[in-house]
Amino acid sequence: MAIFIASRRLSSGSATTTTLRSTCLRFYSSSFREEQDTFGPILVPSDKLWGAQTQRSLQNFEIGGERERMPDPIIRAFGILKKCAAKVNMEYGLDPSIGKAIMEAAQEVAEGKLSDHFPLVVWQTGSGTQSNMNANEVIANRAAEILGHKRGEKFVHPNDHVNKSQSSNDTFPTVMHIAAATEINSRLIPNLKHLHFSLLGKSVEFKDIVKIGRTHTQDATPLTLGQEFSGYSTQVKYGIERVTGSLPCMYQLAQGGTAVGTGLNTKKGFDVRIAAAVAEETNLPFVTAENKFEALAAHDAFVETSGALNTVAASLMKIANDIRLLGSGPRCGLGELILPENEPGSSIMPGKVNPTQCEALTMVCAQVMGNHVAITVGGSNGHFELNVFKPLIANALLHSLRLLGDASASFEKNCVRGIQANRERISKLLHESLMLVTALNPKIGYDNAAAVAKTAHKEGTTLKEAALKLGVLSSEEFENLVVPEKMIGPSD
Amino acid sequence: MAIFIASRRLSSGSATTTTLRSTCLRFYSSSFREEQDTFGPILVPSDKLWGAQTQRSLQNFEIGGERERMPDPIIRAFGILKKCAAKVNMEYGLDPSIGKAIMEAAQEVAEGKLSDHFPLVVWQTGSGTQSNMNANEVIANRAAEILGHKRGEKFVHPNDHVNKSQSSNDTFPTVMHIAAATEINSRLIPNLKHLHFSLLGKSVEFKDIVKIGRTHTQDATPLTLGQEFSGYSTQVKYGIERVTGSLPCMYQLAQGGTAVGTGLNTKKGFDVRIAAAVAEETNLPFVTAENKFEALAAHDAFVETSGALNTVAASLMKIANDIRLLGSGPRCGLGELILPENEPGSSIMPGKVNPTQCEALTMVCAQVMGNHVAITVGGSNGHFELNVFKPLIANALLHSLRLLGDASASFEKNCVRGIQANRERISKLLHESLMLVTALNPKIGYDNAAAVAKTAHKEGTTLKEAALKLGVLSSEEFENLVVPEKMIGPSD
Amino acid sequence: MAIFIASRRLSSGSATTTTLRSTCLRFYSSSFREEQDTFGPILVPSDKLWGAQTQRSLQNFEIGGERERMPDPIIRAFGILKKCAAKVNMEYGLDPSIGKAIMEAAQEVAEGKLSDHFPLVVWQTGSGTQSNMNANEVIANRAAEILGHKRGEKFVHPNDHVNKSQSSNDTFPTVMHIAAATEINSRLIPNLKHLHFSLLGKSVEFKDIVKIGRTHTQDATPLTLGQEFSGYSTQVKYGIERVTGSLPCMYQLAQGGTAVGTGLNTKKGFDVRIAAAVAEETNLPFVTAENKFEALAAHDAFVETSGALNTVAASLMKIANDIRLLGSGPRCGLGELILPENEPGSSIMPGKVNPTQCEALTMVCAQVMGNHVAITVGGSNGHFELNVFKPLIANALLHSLRLLGDASASFEKNCVRGIQANRERISKLLHESLMLVTALNPKIGYDNAAAVAKTAHKEGTTLKEAALKLGVLSSEEFENLVVPEKMIGPSD
Amino acid sequence: MAIFIASRRLSSGSATTTTLRSTCLRFYSSSFREEQDTFGPILVPSDKLWGAQTQRSLQNFEIGGERERMPDPIIRAFGILKKCAAKVNMEYGLDPSIGKAIMEAAQEVAEGKLSDHFPLVVWQTGSGTQSNMNANEVIANRAAEILGHKRGEKFVHPNDHVNKSQSSNDTFPTVMHIAAATEINSRLIPNLKHLHFSLLGKSVEFKDIVKIGRTHTQDATPLTLGQEFSGYSTQVKYGIERVTGSLPCMYQLAQGGTAVGTGLNTKKGFDVRIAAAVAEETNLPFVTAENKFEALAAHDAFVETSGALNTVAASLMKIANDIRLLGSGPRCGLGELILPENEPGSSIMPGKVNPTQCEALTMVCAQVMGNHVAITVGGSNGHFELNVFKPLIANALLHSLRLLGDASASFEKNCVRGIQANRERISKLLHESLMLVTALNPKIGYDNAAAVAKTAHKEGTTLKEAALKLGVLSSEEFENLVVPEKMIGPSD
Repeated sequence: MAIFIASRRLSSGSATTTTLRSTCLRFYSSSFREEQDTFGPILVPSDKLWGAQTQRSLQNFEIGGERERMPDPIIRAFGILKKCAAKVNMEYGLDPSIGKAIMEAAQEVAEGKLSDHFPLVVWQTGSGTQSNMNANEVIANRAAEILGHKRGEKFVHPNDHVNKSQSSNDTFPTVMHIAAATEINSRLIPNLKHLHFSLLGKSVEFKDIVKIGRTHTQDATPLTLGQEFSGYSTQVKYGIERVTGSLPCMYQLAQGGTAVGTGLNTKKGFDVRIAAAVAEETNLPFVTAENKFEALAAHDAFVETSGALNTVAASLMKIANDIRLLGSGPRCGLGELILPENEPGSSIMPGKVNPTQCEALTMVCAQVMGNHVAITVGGSNGHFELNVFKPLIANALLHSLRLLGDASASFEKNCVRGIQANRERISKLLHESLMLVTALNPKIGYDNAAAVAKTAHKEGTTLKEAALKLGVLSSEEFENLVVPEKMIGPSD
Repeated sequence: MAIFIASRRLSSGSATTTTLRSTCLRFYSSSFREEQDTFGPILVPSDKLWGAQTQRSLQNFEIGGERERMPDPIIRAFGILKKCAAKVNMEYGLDPSIGKAIMEAAQEVAEGKLSDHFPLVVWQTGSGTQSNMNANEVIANRAAEILGHKRGEKFVHPNDHVNKSQSSNDTFPTVMHIAAATEINSRLIPNLKHLHFSLLGKSVEFKDIVKIGRTHTQDATPLTLGQEFSGYSTQVKYGIERVTGSLPCMYQLAQGGTAVGTGLNTKKGFDVRIAAAVAEETNLPFVTAENKFEALAAHDAFVETSGALNTVAASLMKIANDIRLLGSGPRCGLGELILPENEPGSSIMPGKVNPTQCEALTMVCAQVMGNHVAITVGGSNGHFELNVFKPLIANALLHSLRLLGDASASFEKNCVRGIQANRERISKLLHESLMLVTALNPKIGYDNAAAVAKTAHKEGTTLKEAALKLGVLSSEEFENLVVPEKMIGPSD
Repeated sequence: MAIFIASRRLSSGSATTTTLRSTCLRFYSSSFREEQDTFGPILVPSDKLWGAQTQRSLQNFEIGGERERMPDPIIRAFGILKKCAAKVNMEYGLDPSIGKAIMEAAQEVAEGKLSDHFPLVVWQTGSGTQSNMNANEVIANRAAEILGHKRGEKFVHPNDHVNKSQSSNDTFPTVMHIAAATEINSRLIPNLKHLHFSLLGKSVEFKDIVKIGRTHTQDATPLTLGQEFSGYSTQVKYGIERVTGSLPCMYQLAQGGTAVGTGLNTKKGFDVRIAAAVAEETNLPFVTAENKFEALAAHDAFVETSGALNTVAASLMKIANDIRLLGSGPRCGLGELILPENEPGSSIMPGKVNPTQCEALTMVCAQVMGNHVAITVGGSNGHFELNVFKPLIANALLHSLRLLGDASASFEKNCVRGIQANRERISKLLHESLMLVTALNPKIGYDNAAAVAKTAHKEGTTLKEAALKLGVLSSEEFENLVVPEKMIGPSD
Repeated sequence: MAIFIASRRLSSGSATTTTLRSTCLRFYSSSFREEQDTFGPILVPSDKLWGAQTQRSLQNFEIGGERERMPDPIIRAFGILKKCAAKVNMEYGLDPSIGKAIMEAAQEVAEGKLSDHFPLVVWQTGSGTQSNMNANEVIANRAAEILGHKRGEKFVHPNDHVNKSQSSNDTFPTVMHIAAATEINSRLIPNLKHLHFSLLGKSVEFKDIVKIGRTHTQDATPLTLGQEFSGYSTQVKYGIERVTGSLPCMYQLAQGGTAVGTGLNTKKGFDVRIAAAVAEETNLPFVTAENKFEALAAHDAFVETSGALNTVAASLMKIANDIRLLGSGPRCGLGELILPENEPGSSIMPGKVNPTQCEALTMVCAQVMGNHVAITVGGSNGHFELNVFKPLIANALLHSLRLLGDASASFEKNCVRGIQANRERISKLLHESLMLVTALNPKIGYDNAAAVAKTAHKEGTTLKEAALKLGVLSSEEFENLVVPEKMIGPSD
């Protein structure tokens, strides 16, 4: 049988030969035991805790290879959920010795200790059934071991014990929510807060640096560099609020809905108790979903949260683009900002330092926008009582969360924190600008002001020279009117 | 000059000949007056209120034709804003006779009476400057007329009077927010509420109809048709909350930021007063934006709201898909729902009635998802102090709002309201199903239950026959266990 | 009945009052006649040629208003198709007097003369059935009039005569293909070719202007402005090839597949003959689709073409972005290009001229990217024998085609054609740059070259001064090595 | 220094602790050597071949963890390219002993033997510079070892030797093209061809099975199951052509453009020779890019190919959706197809078998659509001479290629190949259908036929009974007209 498996895998084409070779080597290097499900017996590597259904999925879904394994936060969330389920099931009559062993095994999953026993890829059953069974099988075998029994004997049964009162259809959406809420709270929000704080700090640091404004990429009236950064920090602040605002739906757990949302094969109150158990375990305010039919058949909560991330991505794309353009140069760009030098920039052009953190961040933003479309397509395509794009949706959102969280931290640490203003350059540009002419508007009217600016532009002179030449103002009047420092706010 | 204009337009290719012909005929049929801006004189149709800058834009942006005109809610919002600006400007010293005339003219714009004088398309300057000037010019000329002066004389000046204390860069985002918030409150939310109410009504109407559930498109354990519809109504309810939740940012107005966000050329307090005036005029809780730099340079509020609409679209796509599949037939589909017949379905197949409202709605949802990407791309591409994708962003969001609002109303009125359950068909399917076997699970265990179902499936018999044949249950036990009505919720 | 209709329309909310008012006024101003379909009698405005099914759709799909009417190229394509169908049907036995009258009426539709009689919106039946019936009804009534009969009498029958041998399910995809292929050939391709030609012309005009290169927005080794523009012209050239490459699938017509692709109710050869007739009528190489099942059930051809437009949009976004950044200034930006001044740029900042054509074009590109997602979502959601997102797909693609075509023309005419190089500025930036240091690489090695650049950067000196100070080169060696004109290509 | 590195990594927050722990353990378990670049010395793990720049990137871009490493096909393509570069550089004077050692080391990279020495993630410099340097450093160190020198000594220099005549800016786009073209040719196209062949086989196998058609999800006129599958096989066939049609641009290599496209620091002919060398090495028709400026500054070729994949995804989404719906049941769905049972379907519902391969495939399609948007956003955002979204674009396309290729193979092997027709069910549905009434159309006219269908529908009778009751046909006439087998094509 093992030989059959291997040869079947090897037959699938030369393109994947290397991957298969390592897979098969791993297989050959181990002995096998027989596991069983309703489909009959199947050989499983002896050193692995998974069972028959996991093994079948491994063979039936050779899509994407190891990079595409179900993401770690999902595996850990399964540990949390199965631990809580065992706890609540004991309240409803599960044998305490078995229950406690399940809790212990599940805790190991929650801590990531058994991650090597979760080999399945994202691209499997759309309900995540096979990953749920993977969790059931691993925990059942591990719990059996804890109780002194052998793997594969089903002393602790993956379905009857570990999955008791549950269905893939409610466990998988539940772990999706646990994983996403955890990642948002422990990674994304803290990192966005650091970024916000850092940008806010820069807006204070730069509050007295008056610079030329730019609209339509053209010179415009002045503002302070601090004001410019205050726009960025406000964007991030709102971004944090947007993500936070999507959490209430994320805190609703499907658990207790079982197969179609009715809660068949659970006892009354199971849904409330398990949500409470998860809340206690995670220190996050999870509650049972108000409507289990919605919670299984749709993943609007994920589409919503992804929409919040998409907005954050749009914000960060804008900010990072500005920063790289303001830092462009060193001599032939705008050159108003000096970005930290973290590495040599080019293999051929010595001395050049590139805005690499901006580049990494904007690439992440593009992927987040793409993942958002994937999630939207998946979220809109449910049928009847079950959306079967669950692993896609979970994976894409967790991908976006991880990338945005990490990239925000990297951008903050390796770029924003070290940004310096090139005060000399900023001042030079400001005073060469024609756009200070706007200050003349209230005094000499729009048409005259336009004429001054046009004259200076055409003749390559300063505004003052043009104004005097056109005779619309005296030198003194000009000096009194055109004071950039007075142009950065409303007048009294 | 008029001849020059016409011939220039005619030269742009045969593909657009017809449009051009009608445009030109309109031009020729009218006489012209001369208008002037800083670029010099230009001829404008005598019967139109617009001025030089509008005319230039008309000639420089022949993109898309009349279908692509700036959407009506934007035009009306300009009326509201310019009226409020005149009112507040009078408080700051604008000549009251001119101010009042501006207010009167602006009111006409707000009421849509002057919409024919707003010919510009969406695809113009990315700041919406030209539409702002269109509003300034129309209102100035109309106000001048009201005061007994001629068009084009600039007795009321479009810049110095109508646009006083304003810039395109703060007026256009302001009208974007006014228009979107108004459409959300007056069209989308009420229509979604009707739809929610109608779906909720159906979930009550159908609360006792037990039917087969379907997961993975496969037969699953039963639920009531009312429960199924409760999932839909919950999706819409959350959708309403999602849209509503995006309003606070939409209520923040950029007005008072002028060109780059600093508020140059305004007086202190202008921003707060004008937001208050708009709030009073619209009866919506508008406030001045907390940070004007963010409000000009980014449109995250629109990306956010579009994300909410995208989520609503995903929800409605799911609901409409379910309804058309549940209504499929009449004889070779699922046939559980009877949809209202609103029109003959096919030109070749008599007697066939199609789920046309579902089709219109799902098409709208696809467009909303597409517009969301357009808005995201536009929103992420701002530079420095100004995002110059404003008309695109405004147009796409207003398009999505209009389509979702109208389609929700149409779907409710012409479909949901009239849905009937095909009780006979539902009952027949339920009782033929194998999936009631799940009810045996707690009694005889997973493996035995599976064997019963497999036997019935293989031999084409009922579950009961299979159970008796396999000897796992008595007839009486079966009858007591397999009661669909008991399978639609948790047990005590 | 007319009163009922009107009041029903008026009841749908204040937000749409104005539109409705004009609609209703039009209704009231006319008298009505009775038309009939399988659903029974219905009143239709006397001055309109449409019949019962059109009228029902008008009442059942109040979505989006007049802006959302089925696009004109679709209406015209219906004229072409129905004319060709009558012609071929006569070969198969259709009464010649009726056939000729249909051809005459259809020709009027093809020429746009009857466009006012096509009131239906895009958001209707997903098969476009109602627009097909609109065409059938208008042509039938018009043909009857031509033959001296009254409207509504069905002397010429919309189904039995005009729609003979056809189904909505094959006519609508056929007109989609006719309309798209026509727009591509008559609008998009010619305009892209003009743009390509214009960019190519600039690359020749600027071929001797050596300028600083920029990578990562940072100063890099030099190139000529002509080389830079050659990249743009190559992008557009490939774009034309991409669009052209998608035409073969677009030239495949579904006509002859009738309801489900089998061709039921047609005679053998009908499909080939009608494709030939359309080809002759349009002068485009249409053929009958190789597989009618694919042609009805999917619109991969549209997804493919939209993918080509999406690529063109990505190209044009890049080009327009570069041009606006290279033209940024006038004094505080890069300032290498002088863009044509087409209009006053700002209502508050006199003398400022903005890259408005770049802005219009990039906004169009964003919308095209969004429409592409809409088309993809619609294209992927067909069921069984029919994709019912047809009007959405058609409308979004035609929208993209129109916008891209028009915006390319506008951008070419009002921007590219008039771009001038700011030679003085370009030269100044080039010679201040540090990046000419790369020319030292082959001579003194990477590490020494880096040291020279770093020294100059740190001390604000020229490269030459730094090189001499570090003693790595003599003055003469430097002059011989650092010649920008020698750095714009490979060496011999 | 090593301790500093470790503590810096550990400080970045508890969320990533586990990943960091394993990373650090790996660090601690090894000794370190000093490597150097223009930034100074840095410690690198002794057992790794990478150098200073790789190490810096590793520390500066902690984004996403190991899952996000630069994809394997990119690493291998670097091996191919560097081997070819050494070969061509020897023709231009590179020391043959060094050149041959580079070729040998590069060959090891091409074979994947040194993949553990490529630790960098996708989210780095947008030019891929750091991965280019990673390749240069690993190959330089390995080549030095081959020649008997130590790592870190730079006997073979990463820049002066391995990267000779190259820049990151031309190498990275070159490896992007090599990797994508290879994956397309070796994985995607063969797998799509198998899928096409399998679907085509089914269309032949099912060619005589007449079944009910479905349009709008409603019963329609009949067709054969073979015809239905011919639509699917045609979609895949066109998909293969679409992907193949995008290859010509993919075969254009940027190599020889160096930093900005001019080819500075290369010799004439280098670009042509290296393309020829790559073509020989890969057996694929690579050529040098016609315009190197386009090849560095834009990635339209990737946007185009991604558009082709997006079309394939839309096709496969449609096909997989149909197959799961046609296979729905077993008793309460359409049930026309019997799908292979590959695994137990549900953890709670015994006996249920789910269309899991359809689910995996449609999830993949959704991700491909999302990646397409990411690629489009990245592709449209280049600046000046360089697009700096390269790693994102490469990664997303390779991701799509891998997923589509693998999922197509899995779908073919585990689903399509084993699909059986449920002939009994198909026949039952067909003969119950009302839609055979269409066959009466030519005989009794549209209106009468509609009446027959409506009567049968209303009274629950057969069409024949209704026709006789209405007296429009004799029994014999009915039998002669309504023959499903005659309704599956045009008539003679």
